[in-house]
Amino acid sequence: MTGEVKFLLTEKEIPTAWYNLGADLPFRPEPPLHPKTLAPLGPEDLAALFPPSLIEQEMSPQRFIDIPGEVLDVYRQWRPTPLVRARRLERALQTPARVYYKYEGVSPAGSHKPNTAVAQAYYNRRDGTRRLTTETGAGQWGSALALACSFFDLECTVYMVRVSYEQKPYRKTFMRLYGAEVIPSPSDRTFSGRAIREADPGSPGSLGIAISEAVEDAAGDPRACYSLGSVLNHVLLHQTIIGLEARRQLEMAGERPDFVVGCFGGGSNFAGLAFPFVMDKINGKQIEIYPVEPKACPTLTRSPFVYDHGDTARYTPLLPMYSLGHAFVPAPIHAGGLRYHGMAPTVSQLANEGLIAPRAVSQTEAYQAGVLWARTEGVIPAPETSNALAQVVREAKKAKEEGKEKVIVFNFSGHGLLDLTGYEKYLSGQLSDYELSDDDMAKSTAVFADYPTPQNLKSR
Amino acid sequence: MTGEVKFLLTEKEIPTAWYNLGADLPFRPEPPLHPKTLAPLGPEDLAALFPPSLIEQEMSPQRFIDIPGEVLDVYRQWRPTPLVRARRLERALQTPARVYYKYEGVSPAGSHKPNTAVAQAYYNRRDGTRRLTTETGAGQWGSALALACSFFDLECTVYMVRVSYEQKPYRKTFMRLYGAEVIPSPSDRTFSGRAIREADPGSPGSLGIAISEAVEDAAGDPRACYSLGSVLNHVLLHQTIIGLEARRQLEMAGERPDFVVGCFGGGSNFAGLAFPFVMDKINGKQIEIYPVEPKACPTLTRSPFVYDHGDTARYTPLLPMYSLGHAFVPAPIHAGGLRYHGMAPTVSQLANEGLIAPRAVSQTEAYQAGVLWARTEGVIPAPETSNALAQVVREAKKAKEEGKEKVIVFNFSGHGLLDLTGYEKYLSGQLSDYELSDDDMAKSTAVFADYPTPQNLKSR
Repeated sequence: MTGEVKFLLTEKEIPTAWYNLGADLPFRPEPPLHPKTLAPLGPEDLAALFPPSLIEQEMSPQRFIDIPGEVLDVYRQWRPTPLVRARRLERALQTPARVYYKYEGVSPAGSHKPNTAVAQAYYNRRDGTRRLTTETGAGQWGSALALACSFFDLECTVYMVRVSYEQKPYRKTFMRLYGAEVIPSPSDRTFSGRAIREADPGSPGSLGIAISEAVEDAAGDPRACYSLGSVLNHVLLHQTIIGLEARRQLEMAGERPDFVVGCFGGGSNFAGLAFPFVMDKINGKQIEIYPVEPKACPTLTRSPFVYDHGDTARYTPLLPMYSLGHAFVPAPIHAGGLRYHGMAPTVSQLANEGLIAPRAVSQTEAYQAGVLWARTEGVIPAPETSNALAQVVREAKKAKEEGKEKVIVFNFSGHGLLDLTGYEKYLSGQLSDYELSDDDMAKSTAVFADYPTPQNLKSR
Repeated sequence: MTGEVKFLLTEKEIPTAWYNLGADLPFRPEPPLHPKTLAPLGPEDLAALFPPSLIEQEMSPQRFIDIPGEVLDVYRQWRPTPLVRARRLERALQTPARVYYKYEGVSPAGSHKPNTAVAQAYYNRRDGTRRLTTETGAGQWGSALALACSFFDLECTVYMVRVSYEQKPYRKTFMRLYGAEVIPSPSDRTFSGRAIREADPGSPGSLGIAISEAVEDAAGDPRACYSLGSVLNHVLLHQTIIGLEARRQLEMAGERPDFVVGCFGGGSNFAGLAFPFVMDKINGKQIEIYPVEPKACPTLTRSPFVYDHGDTARYTPLLPMYSLGHAFVPAPIHAGGLRYHGMAPTVSQLANEGLIAPRAVSQTEAYQAGVLWARTEGVIPAPETSNALAQVVREAKKAKEEGKEKVIVFNFSGHGLLDLTGYEKYLSGQLSDYELSDDDMAKSTAVFADYPTPQNLKSR
């Protein structure tokens, strides 16, 4: 440990390859299955939606994959991001623990999402795509892809859940500012959108519907591909630059981490920080790794390990993952980015194998941690990030009780400047907690009775 | 010049003293005058509003003033801020100019304002103040002071122009999140506020009224002091850390700047970057320094150099400055931070002496530059910052016409994430331009007929 607060790498020290944890897994991961034939998925099954380079990365066995110079040229505007020690938080908690955060909020979109958005835009452009379609709920992902498309001269079409489109006008402006077309979903542009609107003209939309629209739009246009902001291997791969940088910065700080923490919805910010440390753990290092989720959407802590679709309309392949069921509609917590029924297959399988230790926190606990953070460290956390923070605060308090000098590192995945509504509710005492009942859990997962089951399922 | 994009100083290279341009001025600045006696102002005249340390700094003849360790401890969380080369903007403009920006948006409040807010909170706390009062319009300054007060355990009372309070709920939440009390102004808390409300119950408020309320509140409470976010010498002093860092970073980049650019309202972000370069200019370096203002509020480009009050209610001392008249109400441009009738005395006197070359831009030109910037460089500029950007674009285009490799450095004073309404209007073609008519100018400056005139007034 040193006296500094901030650990910076120079532009020349930026990692030049992403890390593919798939190459080091001590078990054989289950394959995704074709949604109709139930046969293991082949590259050709993805060709209608993704460009060849990304399909290759999705299935690559290679340990390190070079980051193209054009992507590094964009990354280096804000990367390597700082690793910062949260000294004022430590003081406020009177803890002997040392807390470090990897600050991804410095990206132009304010979160970690551009790490993969930029890479996806680059590969699509190189492989001849002219337009990308995607969905967005809270707006972080849509914002990042709009930004990346503007850098690589791609058209960008974002299907934004209608209720968010109306409640978050700033997010819409943000995306339009980068030249993206933002369409409230359900829309009249697609078959699936029209079907929903005919049945329910006032439908507020959902992430599931927006995914269906974006997928349908891309599949029907030879100039277009579809882009996803989490869950898939290549997305997690692009995010590993976070953990690769953090490992070197912790070395600069003279620290060996005891705890690695990240929140998760689909898994990409957690994986981005954690995967290089999972490698260390596989190689024998003592290290506890916590993916943190909201109690309102308890994928890793309470749901079954199954084969399920990534979207509500069941267009996507069956993925081996913990899932609340593709028809599950999470309670309206403010951490919109964590409201996802499933979980990245690789992260799911790490949990199934016991290599990571999932935790769940309530919305109130997350906001308490977020406000404590703002008042001590300054930056207002995204509601998603506050979920990780709550777990950090728990461990820092435990270290105090035990009188132990633990080293905690977590992914500060983004700032909350465009998500202040939840804070206003917290300050006014109007924030609600949601916990999924056993009954609702049973209902939403009943669908799995007829689904194939992963072979390497472990009992919990 | 080197191949890098980003020039970073380590935490250990952070400047440890602020630079006081007052020590190097090649002319004798005019003194502020007591608002009633018209005698040159003494330290005792400021004692009701400011703590002794800040009054001393306000009048100090010392060239460098040490930054206290406790202030450096906060600064180093995000300082030194990056100096970044805007390569994608250069490419888009096909200019041989090299454009560098000092990025102050990385602070927790998203702008340069914490540089002085943290220092002011520290000195106030040290000198025994328990509460700070201030005013805010757009919200950048109130946010920064709320943050700083939370770090130094001071109460914070912010009088926020009522129309902004209602139109910008996120800004209010932001300040409350740090524990500040935010009061829509005019309020019933003060004599001046009540007087306005009695005359006009629906008054939307103004910065002038909010200043009067904050000053009155502080003057009437022995536990409280008043805090100002621009204009005064000590505020400009604290901001010089920007320019001190930038000079060293330009050396790292192997560059000598031809143009230094900053937008201004009261003058603090401009001065923060420019003053160390003004020193270079005084010492014989060839360098053009542009303060940039909106055409809707043309202080340095069109108004007279006079003695005027800093506030509408005429509570403050008479300051030697360019002023549109203390009763002037600027048009409702989105760059709220630039809607100020006067200008920092030191900056005013530099303009009067011809050491800096003021420029004015229209609202549309500023937004065009802001959108071009977002689409090439990524970060969305604050509407204020876009005014500086417009001048940068002008110079980059001129360099292209002349085929000259000019080096331009400007202060990217803050991001615009909480100010997206203006961008939405721009994208929808609903943005208006405002230019002050000669008639209105004559009307608002007629008041000066009875005022004392600065002795060293130069003809324009």
